[in-house]
Order: sequence, then C-alpha cells, then structure tokens
Amino acid sequence: VDRADAAALDAADALADRREAFRLPDGVIYLDGNSLGALQPAVAERIRTVVTDEWGEGLIRSWNAAGWVSLPHQVAERIAPLLGATSDEVAVTDSTSANLFKALVAARRLRPGRRMILTDDRNFPSDVYVAGGVAALLADTEVVVVASDEVEDRLADDVAVLTLTHVDYRTGGLHDAARLTAAAHRAGALTVWDLSHSAGAVAVDLAGWAADLAVGCTYKYLNGGPGAPAYLYAARRHHDALDAPIRGWHGHAAPFDFSADYAAGPGADRFLGGTPPIISLAALDTALAVWDGVDVDAVVDKSRRLTDAFIERVDDRLAGLGVEVLSPRDRRDRGAQVSLRHDHALPVMQALIARGLIGDVRPPDVLRFGFSPLYVRFVDVWDAVERLHDVLVSRVFESPTYQQRPTVT
Amino acid sequence: VDRADAAALDAADALADRREAFRLPDGVIYLDGNSLGALQPAVAERIRTVVTDEWGEGLIRSWNAAGWVSLPHQVAERIAPLLGATSDEVAVTDSTSANLFKALVAARRLRPGRRMILTDDRNFPSDVYVAGGVAALLADTEVVVVASDEVEDRLADDVAVLTLTHVDYRTGGLHDAARLTAAAHRAGALTVWDLSHSAGAVAVDLAGWAADLAVGCTYKYLNGGPGAPAYLYAARRHHDALDAPIRGWHGHAAPFDFSADYAAGPGADRFLGGTPPIISLAALDTALAVWDGVDVDAVVDKSRRLTDAFIERVDDRLAGLGVEVLSPRDRRDRGAQVSLRHDHALPVMQALIARGLIGDVRPPDVLRFGFSPLYVRFVDVWDAVERLHDVLVSRVFESPTYQQRPTVT
Repeated sequence: VDRADAAALDAADALADRREAFRLPDGVIYLDGNSLGALQPAVAERIRTVVTDEWGEGLIRSWNAAGWVSLPHQVAERIAPLLGATSDEVAVTDSTSANLFKALVAARRLRPGRRMILTDDRNFPSDVYVAGGVAALLADTEVVVVASDEVEDRLADDVAVLTLTHVDYRTGGLHDAARLTAAAHRAGALTVWDLSHSAGAVAVDLAGWAADLAVGCTYKYLNGGPGAPAYLYAARRHHDALDAPIRGWHGHAAPFDFSADYAAGPGADRFLGGTPPIISLAALDTALAVWDGVDVDAVVDKSRRLTDAFIERVDDRLAGLGVEVLSPRDRRDRGAQVSLRHDHALPVMQALIARGLIGDVRPPDVLRFGFSPLYVRFVDVWDAVERLHDVLVSRVFESPTYQQRPTVT
Repeated sequence: VDRADAAALDAADALADRREAFRLPDGVIYLDGNSLGALQPAVAERIRTVVTDEWGEGLIRSWNAAGWVSLPHQVAERIAPLLGATSDEVAVTDSTSANLFKALVAARRLRPGRRMILTDDRNFPSDVYVAGGVAALLADTEVVVVASDEVEDRLADDVAVLTLTHVDYRTGGLHDAARLTAAAHRAGALTVWDLSHSAGAVAVDLAGWAADLAVGCTYKYLNGGPGAPAYLYAARRHHDALDAPIRGWHGHAAPFDFSADYAAGPGADRFLGGTPPIISLAALDTALAVWDGVDVDAVVDKSRRLTDAFIERVDDRLAGLGVEVLSPRDRRDRGAQVSLRHDHALPVMQALIARGLIGDVRPPDVLRFGFSPLYVRFVDVWDAVERLHDVLVSRVFESPTYQQRPTVT
C-alpha cells in the first residue's frame, strides 16, 4: 500500500467532483471540517449579492423582492433530506444551544409527571449546561448524567426526556440512535438528539429512528460558515401538542399581521424566533446546494472508508510514537472523525498546524481529525499521517514555540 | 420656507459627513431606517474579508488569528456608550426575542413572590408573545396588558416585572423611561426595556434611568444588516443574582475548558449563548464604527429637528389630503419616527415606493417614516412630502397596481 493506491481511490471516488465546489488554502490538509466546514466560492458570491445588491440597493424591499421572507423555509427544505425529515418538521433558526433549550423545555412539558432529563457523559458539556438550565427553570425537573453504557438501564418511568449527542465530540463514537430511541419510547420517554456532528457525514434517519425532537448546527459538515444558524426538528406527530417556550414573531402563524394575540405557526415553524439572520441564512442556502444530487449513502460510505484508512495508516506508521486510537475501530460505531490520544496533544497539534495539517484538540490529551466526505481525499489521509509521523519522530512539538496555549484550541 | 432652506440646514449639519459612510441607492429617499438601516460600503468590505480571507483561508485558525473569539466583547464595547452602559453590562447575542425571553425569565426569578409581568398596549406584539411564553412556562406568572396611561396606576406589590418598548413602533410615541423605571422600583418591580427603536436615534441612558434589564436589535438605527445579532443589558448591581435560563457554552466562565460543570460567565457574559454568529458580528462591529467621535446628543437633536420639520411640512402641504399625524407633536414625546394615518395606507405606500420614497406600513392604516439621523437630510424631508403630495393629489394609489398586499408590508 502506498500513496499511489490512495490516489487511485480518489480517482475512482464518485464524490470527487464535489471537492471542486470548495476552496481550500494551498498546502493545507484540512481535517477540521467537524469543527468549521470549508468555504465554497459560491457562498462568498451569494453573500456579496445579499449584502451589496439586496441589502445595499434593495434595502427593506428585499424582504419581498429578494425572497428574504422565505429563506428559513427554503433552507429547511434543503436540510430536511439530510436528516430523514420533511421540511415542515424543520425550523432553521437561532443557535444549537437555544434550540436545544427550546426542544428540551417542549419535550419536558409533554411528560409532566416525570422529573428526569437523562443524558450521558459523552454529551457535549454545553448540552449538559443547557439541560441544567432547563432543570433550574422548571419545577420538579432534574438532570441525570450516566455513563453511556448505563443509559438503557436507567430508562424508567421517571424519565421525561433522553437527550444525547449522536456522535461523541471527543472520540467520534456513534450512538445507535434507533435502538436508544426505541428504548426511550418503551420507557415512555421522549428523545432529543443533537446531530451537530452527524448531519452531512453519518447516516441520520430521524423518521426511521422514530425520533421526537432533534437539534444541530450547520457550520460543521454542512459548511454554513462560522456561527451559521442552527436547526430544530420536531416530528410531525407531536406538532399539535408542542408549545414553543420562546414565542418570537417569526414563529407566529401570521407574523406580518402584528396581531395582539399569539397563535403558534404550523409545524416546526413555531420554533422560529425573532427576525431571521438573513445574510447567514442566504449563505447557508447556497452552502447546502452542493448536496443537490448527492447520494447520502455514498457520503456515509466515504466517511467510513476515509476513517478506516486513517486508522490503518496510524497503526502502520505511528506505532511506538505515543499515539493511541481513541475512536471505535468498528466503522459502524464511529462518526466521520478519528481521535488520537497523545500526552502532548496541544503542542503536537500546534506543530501540525504550522506544517499545514489542521485538526484540533480537546482537553486534556485528544487530537481530533475530521474527514468531511465532500472535500477530504484519500491522499489527504496518506499525507496527514506522514506529517504526523514527521512531527512525532522529530519531537519538534517539544519546541517552546508550541507550548503556549492559545485562547481557542 | 422652501427647499433652499432645507438645503441650508443640511449645509450647517455637523453630522452631514456621516452620510458619506453610507451608500444609498440613486433616486431613493430612504425613510425606513427604523426597520432596516442602510449599508455602509465598509461593512460590505469587512464581510468580504471575514468570508474570503478569515473563513476561506484561515479556516478554524481564525478563532485566534483573526480575533473571532473576542468579537462579542468588541461589539459590546461599541454598543455600551449608545445605551448609557458599560461593556460588562452588555451581551451581544441571539435575537431580540430570545434576549427578551432570557431577560424576562431572569427578572421574574428575582421577584419570586410576585405573579405579574406588566406591559402596555403600545408594546411590540412580538414582545407580548414572548412575555406570554414566559408566563406559560413559569409557575404563578401572568401577563397583564394595560393602556399606556394606566401603567403607573397598575404598579403594585404583585408586579414582578414591568416590560415596555421605549418607542411605540406604530406612532413613534416615546415613554418617559426614567419616570416609569422609578415608579416600577417604588412598587418593588424590575424593568425590562426594549430599545429596538431607540438606540442610535433617541436619548438612551440606562444608568441614568437606573434600569434593570434591557434588550434591543441592531439592524435598525445601528445599521448592522438584516437580522443582525441583538443585545441584552443587565445592570451591574444585579449580576451576582441573575441566572441565565439558556446556558450556552459561550456564556460559561471558561468556554474553551469544556468543563463538565456549568459556571456562569462574568456580568452580562452569562447571557451569551451558543457559537457566536461571526460574520454578522463582524459586520456589526464595522457598522458601529461610524459612531466613533459622534456626539449622541447631536444625533438626538437632529432626529427631533428632522421629525419636527416633517410634521410641519405635512401640516402645510398635505392639509385636506386625508392624512393625519399620529405621532406626538411634542418632540420630547417622540422617537425618530413620524406616523401618518391614511385610509389607504398600504397602496399609498406602494405608490410612494414605486416613486423612490421608501417607508413602510403597519396594519390597518399607518404609514411610517423613520428619520435615521446619520444619513437622512433636511432636503429628504422636503422631497418626501412633495412625493407624498404627488401621490395623494393624483390618487395614483387607487390604481390596481397597488392594491395587492405583499407578503411583507
């Protein structure tokens, strides 16, 4: 096996043409699309049009003339197929944290006799903070955090909501969402999934899972840009019963009537909030166009092959160099990410970034590499491990240059 | 009095040079800055840099290298002086609706023995929806809406929070915020002000008012762009006691530690939410630079002189043409907006827009005109009334062209 084999895999890759939609800096291997997806030049151009022509020239008229008013729905239609949802079940709005708050509150209120919001220790810390805020707000509500393998045992008639992040942000480990959703339902609980590290990279089928609610961000594998708007999914069977805790005017059934009385918008629309972030929504709308005609199964398959190839090369090439594969070795249990443990993760990553291999770290000792299937190639996998090898063998990471911790890691 | 007098006022205007920072379409008189502020070319250029260079080239590295991580604070420092606040009291985040939700919940929890969220019938309908959502969520909480002139009489020991919008979006009528805040405090209640139609156009002095909490948008007189991030103000004396209901990771004391335990960030930071909307925050940062060196009193004075001049011309020129001035005639009771009533407000406005005079309408019969002091001139006031005169005298608004209601009015 050599680099030519990797190049041959790229040549045979049915998704190879999608990479052309993206612009990646010269000399950079970008394995951090799980943190911030790459820019497409078409997105930059759409933003230019929205800002200069629609805002600058059209001004307030662009709500109608440029279709700003329909952007949230337009983007929901693009995201829905990536989630296994229909567009009336998806609201594109606010941040993931705000949407998780709304989803947890709404779900908890559908299970009034049950105290517990159950989650696991693989969840994003931020999601656990949000759940804690919900528990502090609502009467008779508490958050219980258990080990991942204890979730199913803990599901009982005191659990209102099971909330989990589908892909573990540290290890890339993947929950069996269908099984856990079924287990929650058997216990009479609802589920709220965080799909931030899933949509666009791993198989998501909210309808197939019989999921209740879900949230996720769009700036990772969906390439919407830094801090792009998030989404909230609500299964249609719950629509009539769901009460949105934040009743912003765009969630009203008739937002432009300025009626004194609140009337919830149809379906997931009730979870829309204040005035939509037009520039970001337009950027996201164009960013998602790259998925037109893409077979999502092929994307999932490629993410598995890329991560398999990376793990295999790490095993072959980095043996004895102090790295340990933290991610599940069975591709079915893994997202589009591979994490390596190293005692000096932060300086190693800083040395790698200085050499054009961009991943990131999570405290205390995790190196993370994301394999965004639309633009990462098999030769990138090969070259990345070579750069890792150089940094680890040379021990350049011990240089004082790389010892200082930056604000954001 | 003629157009030359208006031109002379512009020539003597100390703020005249600020108009050069903005780009307004040729032939357009833009009197809708109270709905969507105008574009500054420097903002378009900043957005281009953020998108193409910082996101496209810098990718994830830009959190540190381009200072993305400090953008929320940087923008808070620019907004604070326009509010009579210090920057540790201001969080720039989320939508106005989400921030109002957070502020109302936090305020209500500081007054546990009191049921009532009091507001008036001049508030934004959306704000009343949000308050209703809070009441539906919290035990023993109700929203009471009274007529504006009954607010002070209704303040009693059952009122937890008085929430009002400073400038009436329909009439431009201005509350006496200092007096109402003092009255609320005498009754033991807290205040939550919505400053969306205030900051950047009328006198705002949150410290001087002894205000408790406030929210506002940045896409009107602050020119941040369509759906720009909003802000939340929390007076320093309340910081230790305030609990943010939505505990997003950027509101954590150490967001990048990924600690399992939640610890509220300092001051208003605890009201920050999920990942900040970087492109929009950068745009807002540049949009606010136009205020550097501007005397806010001069801005307020100009907004009063512009609106005085408009009302005077309407009285002189449009007598007998079916319009009625709805806004307070005393400049001290008025925001930077004048509203006119007309039986056919919507088609009149559509005919005006077709002739390059852009305002907007609010159902059922209100024509609104906003006078953003940084870029509206006295000749614009003169010319606007001439265009109104032409449309009203010609009765062109009766044409079928203008009868259809657009989605957004």
